[in-house]
Amino acid sequence: MAESWSFLDTFETNFRPLVVVELAKGAKEETVEWFTKRIVDKKANGGAQLLVKPLVTENRDENIYLVGASHLRLLLGAETVGLVKECNDNSMRSFTYSSRKTFKDFADDNHNFLTMAECQYIIKHELENLRAKDEKMIPGYPQAKLYPGKSIVRRLLTSGILIQIFPLHDTEELKKLRHSWYGRVKVGYQPLDEIRCYFGETIALYFGFLEYFTFALIPMAVIGIPYYVFAWEDYDKYVMFATFNLLWSTVILEVWKRICAILAYRWGTLLMKRQFEEPRPGFHGVLGINPVTGREEPVYSSIKRQIRIYLVSLPFVCLCLYFSLYVMMIYFDLEKWALDYHEENESNFSNLMLFVPSIIYAVVIEIMNRIYRYAAEFLTSWENHRLESSYQNHLILKVLVFNFLNCFASLFYIAFVLFDMKLLRQSLATLLVTSQILNQFAESLLPYWLQKRHKKRMKKRVCSLKTDTDLSLVEQVNMEKEMGTYFGTFDDYLELFLQFGYVSLFSCVYPLAAVFAVLNNITEMYSDALKMCRVYKRPFAEPTANIGVWQLAFETMSVISVVTNCILIGMSPQVNALFPDSKMDLILTVALVEHLLLAIKFIMAFVIPDKPRDIQIKLAKLEFESLEALKQQ
Amino acid sequence: MAESWSFLDTFETNFRPLVVVELAKGAKEETVEWFTKRIVDKKANGGAQLLVKPLVTENRDENIYLVGASHLRLLLGAETVGLVKECNDNSMRSFTYSSRKTFKDFADDNHNFLTMAECQYIIKHELENLRAKDEKMIPGYPQAKLYPGKSIVRRLLTSGILIQIFPLHDTEELKKLRHSWYGRVKVGYQPLDEIRCYFGETIALYFGFLEYFTFALIPMAVIGIPYYVFAWEDYDKYVMFATFNLLWSTVILEVWKRICAILAYRWGTLLMKRQFEEPRPGFHGVLGINPVTGREEPVYSSIKRQIRIYLVSLPFVCLCLYFSLYVMMIYFDLEKWALDYHEENESNFSNLMLFVPSIIYAVVIEIMNRIYRYAAEFLTSWENHRLESSYQNHLILKVLVFNFLNCFASLFYIAFVLFDMKLLRQSLATLLVTSQILNQFAESLLPYWLQKRHKKRMKKRVCSLKTDTDLSLVEQVNMEKEMGTYFGTFDDYLELFLQFGYVSLFSCVYPLAAVFAVLNNITEMYSDALKMCRVYKRPFAEPTANIGVWQLAFETMSVISVVTNCILIGMSPQVNALFPDSKMDLILTVALVEHLLLAIKFIMAFVIPDKPRDIQIKLAKLEFESLEALKQQ
Repeated sequence: MAESWSFLDTFETNFRPLVVVELAKGAKEETVEWFTKRIVDKKANGGAQLLVKPLVTENRDENIYLVGASHLRLLLGAETVGLVKECNDNSMRSFTYSSRKTFKDFADDNHNFLTMAECQYIIKHELENLRAKDEKMIPGYPQAKLYPGKSIVRRLLTSGILIQIFPLHDTEELKKLRHSWYGRVKVGYQPLDEIRCYFGETIALYFGFLEYFTFALIPMAVIGIPYYVFAWEDYDKYVMFATFNLLWSTVILEVWKRICAILAYRWGTLLMKRQFEEPRPGFHGVLGINPVTGREEPVYSSIKRQIRIYLVSLPFVCLCLYFSLYVMMIYFDLEKWALDYHEENESNFSNLMLFVPSIIYAVVIEIMNRIYRYAAEFLTSWENHRLESSYQNHLILKVLVFNFLNCFASLFYIAFVLFDMKLLRQSLATLLVTSQILNQFAESLLPYWLQKRHKKRMKKRVCSLKTDTDLSLVEQVNMEKEMGTYFGTFDDYLELFLQFGYVSLFSCVYPLAAVFAVLNNITEMYSDALKMCRVYKRPFAEPTANIGVWQLAFETMSVISVVTNCILIGMSPQVNALFPDSKMDLILTVALVEHLLLAIKFIMAFVIPDKPRDIQIKLAKLEFESLEALKQQ
Repeated sequence: MAESWSFLDTFETNFRPLVVVELAKGAKEETVEWFTKRIVDKKANGGAQLLVKPLVTENRDENIYLVGASHLRLLLGAETVGLVKECNDNSMRSFTYSSRKTFKDFADDNHNFLTMAECQYIIKHELENLRAKDEKMIPGYPQAKLYPGKSIVRRLLTSGILIQIFPLHDTEELKKLRHSWYGRVKVGYQPLDEIRCYFGETIALYFGFLEYFTFALIPMAVIGIPYYVFAWEDYDKYVMFATFNLLWSTVILEVWKRICAILAYRWGTLLMKRQFEEPRPGFHGVLGINPVTGREEPVYSSIKRQIRIYLVSLPFVCLCLYFSLYVMMIYFDLEKWALDYHEENESNFSNLMLFVPSIIYAVVIEIMNRIYRYAAEFLTSWENHRLESSYQNHLILKVLVFNFLNCFASLFYIAFVLFDMKLLRQSLATLLVTSQILNQFAESLLPYWLQKRHKKRMKKRVCSLKTDTDLSLVEQVNMEKEMGTYFGTFDDYLELFLQFGYVSLFSCVYPLAAVFAVLNNITEMYSDALKMCRVYKRPFAEPTANIGVWQLAFETMSVISVVTNCILIGMSPQVNALFPDSKMDLILTVALVEHLLLAIKFIMAFVIPDKPRDIQIKLAKLEFESLEALKQQ
């Protein structure tokens, strides 16, 4: 082991392992050779021109390779992926190798110009864009077919030859990050810039949103507390609270867009034109010419995609939603039946029976959720989106709608069919608090504990082998490859989204929801941070400029909550008492108020600009410059 | 006279008069000399570098100048204003003098590469951007103050020294255009490309919209006819008609955006970045550096503008709206009072009295409209918008809201306060038909008749002077300078907007409205064409890529019409008969349907892309190219 590393040290002093490629244990030698050759090969020959080294462990079966790249190669890669960096004049520009001297902190010997996350992103991009040329199949595996333009890594993954590709942690940096993030007790913002440097923009934006959202909920929580403390039940106070909530939620979502633009500009992703990138590895099609960039790549008719979306995916989603509603109705029937049974023959058994419907329903929902998610992934993949962001948005939208229904349909039923406000408040409180506790536990604490146990055992084993105190690279790789994989921010956003639903949809029934949300989010920040740093493998950085379809989802939720809150207030006995003679006047008044609120919301969303003025100016300046450059040509 | 023109012909063979500048009759010689010198002066000296010739008429008092420019100057001007032209490879690109050879139909001796309208636009732009340097005042007029950056033409206009600037008609081209536009009886589209070449994009887009809108109304009209013929009163048919109307209006507005993008792309205005242009002449501020373009120009804080808009203009508009509603209520009171009076003492006098309130109201509305419009222009000008489009949009929005209220408030009152459907149908029909007839008359036919009389008189006078058969340039100028000025497309769009209101707001009460609208629009096309070609001075072309705030206005109208139609249907006796027991169920059903329709509308608007796919690709391609060009630099 020591020899293999000193071997590296002697022959390639500046090889810095960045990404780990784990191949199947029994992978044929011929395949491994071909794959590593493609990775190392010159760009001109269709290779990735990266550096690759085998990791020699005590277990000779293992096929683990470390991938790195020379400094020059990484700089050229940064140009290819279109990284945007800050220039000496404080403007943000696309990095090009030829203009490298104009960028801030650039020096030929400064290997920290690109962050490690950026380097890893570049390597991932290069590996994923290794595409088959004239190969008909993967050497050694005749059943793993290839065709020109097919991503090799993707075929290797689907054939099970490639197990995983993941970026290595940087233990030094991670320690620093952990310290400033959650290592000490402090009151203050999260170190978003450092998170971004280490984990990339997608994850940093999630933490930025989590933090922003928590702060934004504080006014709601503060206003909600006296309602609980003094047990206020006056309708005018509820109306005021709901109105404030509705307008406030519009404001916070609009302001988030502005903050997001500021962050994305500072991080360079606002200017990154990802639509000009090469297609995502899962994208397939006949090799052709991209009409925009003129590059050779797989092309796929957008009409075909539209047909798949509207004629297959959309009906499927609607069917699933209908089915889910149907299951819910069965649950309510069962519930009623159990209650009747209990009243008729009161016994221990009937007492037990009362819980059966809920348990069955919870299990069925969980199963449905899993099946649906699998189907959604399959469908979205089959829709064949060219861009990763578009794939993600379509997937998120599908899963989101289903989850929304499963989560809130029963509450809607209780509120607007059973008209039982007391039960609604009770269910809401139970759902909110239990889901929060369960989530925190299942998402971070449990994996953390498992991870810690596993690490201890690993360390023991390692220690029994040799008595070095410091963890060597081999140990680090072995440890990290066993860690869980972080599957993206979807579940984290979904949790916030559902929470936002609990807080805003029925805010006038349960003003305390915001308080619980704030408390949960504060611990959530820490447990999520722990999860990222300790539990999961380091995820690849993914440049992104906004939270994508989540913005739309939150905005839609805030529109729906105007409707629900108006109805709830209209149904409250206090408001009903104001219109003793005519129910009609009541409903008309409620409808009028609702329309007014919706109109105000839309006007506010229209009037508040999505980007702060200085960002607008900077973007316009860049656009002006590029048009001028085009003219000059 | 003949001498003066032969003089021109001899000395400057290629001087083609394009724009007429009419100065006040008593303008001081010193001023005229200074102004013409500035026009002729080199760009480097702060001049416009155009050609200028006095028009020598029999009336020596007159100070009329013809402005033209050399071919080279016009090409350079085309680059300055950022004209977009078609290249040899069929792509659209910003014209630059250095790349002139790559443009379609470009040849050094082809003086038709730029259309006359484009040349005139360039000259107007150059004249308006003649800005004061170190002059403290206009020479000869110490009270007409100047400061660095102030538009000279604007100061001359406001001081009354400059009477008008207008582009000359091209009699040959106009004859051809007239012939293909309305000269022969034909079934077919309007020659939009030719209209655009002659009058510019703003006017061509108006005619494009008028034509498109008329075609789009035909399905509504066709479906509406049987309702009238068979006197259908079944609620289900009305519901179907209204639902179709509401969804149809969303579709047509979304599709218009796509058609508009196609037209604007073909005409090059979609790619014109007008926000990078120099500010509109009315814009004032301290001379500074534009942060985007880096050019020296007046700058004005956008926060100050926001404050003016939200703290002065908005309250003022609200106050005016309130006042207008107040006047309407007085009118209804008066009406009632007159009716009571008539019933009490029936006589000829009381019969006459019945009409008095309506007449007073009509007169008051007209006066209010005029005062309000003047105030709106003042306020919008005072808001100090940098871009002409932004000025126009703010002005249009202000005037629009007021006109909407004046037009429809009484109908809303009849429908939703008096609940008198019969009166509503009657008022709607009367308002629609009379306003259409009056408009057609006042807008085109009357001015045309006046113009014809004037022309005859002019011709007689000219003929008495000399017996030349052809109208010379002097006569043309003299004739055109007396013609009315076309103040932009505002009134034309407003007419269509109010018509759209009549058709859609109460469509389930009066399905015949669409028929009248279609009939009106067909004649409108011809009368508007007549108006443009015969009645008014040629207007300056104004490049524009869309119909601006009108799109928003039409969309808002279609949202409002969902609400009104749902209420109207809910109020109909047939629907009421379906819910004999419970008014509440009725209202809830109506509200549910309304929300569903609104949701469908918003989803449709979201799903239908604003630009056709091929335009999207072309735009992306240009963006990609300009980013690449910036990288190359």
